[in-house]
Amino acid sequence: MAIGLEVFPEMVPIAGVRLGSACAGIKYKNHPDLTLIEIAPGGSCTGVFTRNAFCAAPVTIAKKHLKETEPRYLLINSGNANAGLGQPGIDAAIQCCDSVAKNSNTASNQVLPFSTGVIGEHLPAEKIAAAVPELLNQLSDTGWQQAAQAIMTTDTRPKGYSETIQIDGCPITITGISKGAGMIKPDMATMLAFIATDANIEPSLLNSMLLIAANKSFNRITIDGDTSTNDACMLIASGQTELPEISDPSCPAAEKFQALLDRVCEYLAVAIIRDGEGATKLIEVVVEGAIDQSEALSVGYTVAESPLVKTAMFASDPNWGRILAAVGRAGVSDLDIEHISIYLDDLCIVENGGRAESYREELGAAVMQAEAVKILIQLGRGQHTEKLWTTDLSYDYVRINAEYRT
Amino acid sequence: MAIGLEVFPEMVPIAGVRLGSACAGIKYKNHPDLTLIEIAPGGSCTGVFTRNAFCAAPVTIAKKHLKETEPRYLLINSGNANAGLGQPGIDAAIQCCDSVAKNSNTASNQVLPFSTGVIGEHLPAEKIAAAVPELLNQLSDTGWQQAAQAIMTTDTRPKGYSETIQIDGCPITITGISKGAGMIKPDMATMLAFIATDANIEPSLLNSMLLIAANKSFNRITIDGDTSTNDACMLIASGQTELPEISDPSCPAAEKFQALLDRVCEYLAVAIIRDGEGATKLIEVVVEGAIDQSEALSVGYTVAESPLVKTAMFASDPNWGRILAAVGRAGVSDLDIEHISIYLDDLCIVENGGRAESYREELGAAVMQAEAVKILIQLGRGQHTEKLWTTDLSYDYVRINAEYRT
Repeated sequence: MAIGLEVFPEMVPIAGVRLGSACAGIKYKNHPDLTLIEIAPGGSCTGVFTRNAFCAAPVTIAKKHLKETEPRYLLINSGNANAGLGQPGIDAAIQCCDSVAKNSNTASNQVLPFSTGVIGEHLPAEKIAAAVPELLNQLSDTGWQQAAQAIMTTDTRPKGYSETIQIDGCPITITGISKGAGMIKPDMATMLAFIATDANIEPSLLNSMLLIAANKSFNRITIDGDTSTNDACMLIASGQTELPEISDPSCPAAEKFQALLDRVCEYLAVAIIRDGEGATKLIEVVVEGAIDQSEALSVGYTVAESPLVKTAMFASDPNWGRILAAVGRAGVSDLDIEHISIYLDDLCIVENGGRAESYREELGAAVMQAEAVKILIQLGRGQHTEKLWTTDLSYDYVRINAEYRT
Repeated sequence: MAIGLEVFPEMVPIAGVRLGSACAGIKYKNHPDLTLIEIAPGGSCTGVFTRNAFCAAPVTIAKKHLKETEPRYLLINSGNANAGLGQPGIDAAIQCCDSVAKNSNTASNQVLPFSTGVIGEHLPAEKIAAAVPELLNQLSDTGWQQAAQAIMTTDTRPKGYSETIQIDGCPITITGISKGAGMIKPDMATMLAFIATDANIEPSLLNSMLLIAANKSFNRITIDGDTSTNDACMLIASGQTELPEISDPSCPAAEKFQALLDRVCEYLAVAIIRDGEGATKLIEVVVEGAIDQSEALSVGYTVAESPLVKTAMFASDPNWGRILAAVGRAGVSDLDIEHISIYLDDLCIVENGGRAESYREELGAAVMQAEAVKILIQLGRGQHTEKLWTTDLSYDYVRINAEYRT
């Protein structure tokens, strides 16, 4: 059902970053469900985490450890979210970190735990501990594709992206993987992304660069509007390159790196949408001419999360009335509908507060045949633009989310 | 597919209010699609209208006429929303008012127009004008059930309620009808309610009483989170009773009347949810212990509009993790998850930030067998409570909204 994503891309290794995967038998036997990412000494790591107040135990521990010291290991299990369990969940997450620390001669707080899978079931930390020696044995800088597979839950495709550019004559690579397809089965909790670069970037700049990139990618995708309890996106900079440390955000090297990071994050974020539950269409929603970001996002998300817009998209129906009604209820104060234009790809469907005069149903129907459709909303109020991505709402979405017990 | 609503209740006539219905052939031939409600001189009328910025032409005109003078007629057509059409839509709405005025010897601004049906198609005002003489002929104080039927679009059941109470020894009745099942086909634009009483109520008090009742009923229901362009709820007070005018909001008569009005509005609003598109479950979401109304509503709507919660409800799955995750992402600042409890009916499913210790899957599954389920969320932060209603999200919701062209 995924839109595109047929071919997994070639993943360029990152010096100073190794990955290993193993089968711990967390939910299924003989199914890769455990991944370890090792960062060589001297590397740095930063992350953005879910804002859900009911965040999972591993998120709490990962944030705490990240504050305390530079991490050496990221331990990711699928099959169980370790969420909604109170103190026993915290204990299990710490136990997992302990077992990596013991086997690798590091401190427990140098290990960051991540979990994705069913909410509310006890995490079998002992199974994870038993698989740690094998995980460490498997570590290799070519382990990206296996890792992309081992972090999947209801994803139908592994998701990865890798790109190398030249900065000041030096090759710099960013390689990353992501997972997520909804918040699902019974509650797969949900989006994770692990991205690494060989660039050497001053840690606080690394963090602000990730925030910038995430706010244009992972924080702009919505399948069902539901924020998972376990979301995290991590960025590792191993620093194992000839290029000197980047510390000035306005230098050309920083700008080049930011642009590359933006591309990687966008690819990995959109890959999640492409593999969205029951998705048959990739929908890009662009809001132009807003007064500020909040207004642009409010209109964008109201359209992107409208069940009526999404079912119309599933039906390949250019239903301009539903888009117009969603814009109208987005809570923008003093919205002058006379100034609003709405396009499907390049086709104007709404202008001057109503259906565009030039619009014909057959033109709209033709646009809707594509697998990817852009909805462009021009508010005509200011200079702010936001872009976000979503899927349609299909029978399969309901099936996947309603019938998981079968 | 409607939940309950098998029997249309007996409707007590309201002295001073007559209704007539007719077939104007707006969308289908020989299908009642036009309704006229007549208010005898001396009666008063108030309303609440959609806040969608793209409100339909009849809403614009009805609000304008209501400001200018006391209305004598409410003209309602189904089959066409007269929305999203700019000035031609306004012209058509005025033309409809004109034809009622001409045939009834009233002024055009004493007529309020209402439309519900497809967005973006030209309203055939000439067909409506042609049916007006017949409509006036049909006027009768027993026309409520026919009117409830003529205002339907994709509703599967007419919706009405009538109740008489004694105030100071005098019988006072409120009788009302509503329509709505989603925002649908291609965009049925959507909820309408017409309520009348024989009580004599000071006009500004009548308006504030309707606001109070609507904020506990019509403004607390959500099927898909989509606000229609045409929503309106009108309340008529004919004043044709022995009971003196009620003008003091704190007098016992006003309190009794408000309680009755609240009941009528709640019944008619919940009837819309019961007939929600594809609905198999009526879900009441109650948020207790919020600091203020905005917080309570934010949590309530986040849960009520979560596709994951709604598909779980469709599957009769007591999926506490999805409810908990929706509460966690509702944007409540400094939410202390340790103080939150969540119940399905009387069964505690979440306490102390995680699954309740006493909770067992089979107990949850038993609660979920019912056609109506209450989700109670206790935030433990303050004294504010809000109640709202929604439906589950089923295959039929997607079918109805995706396959309307068939």
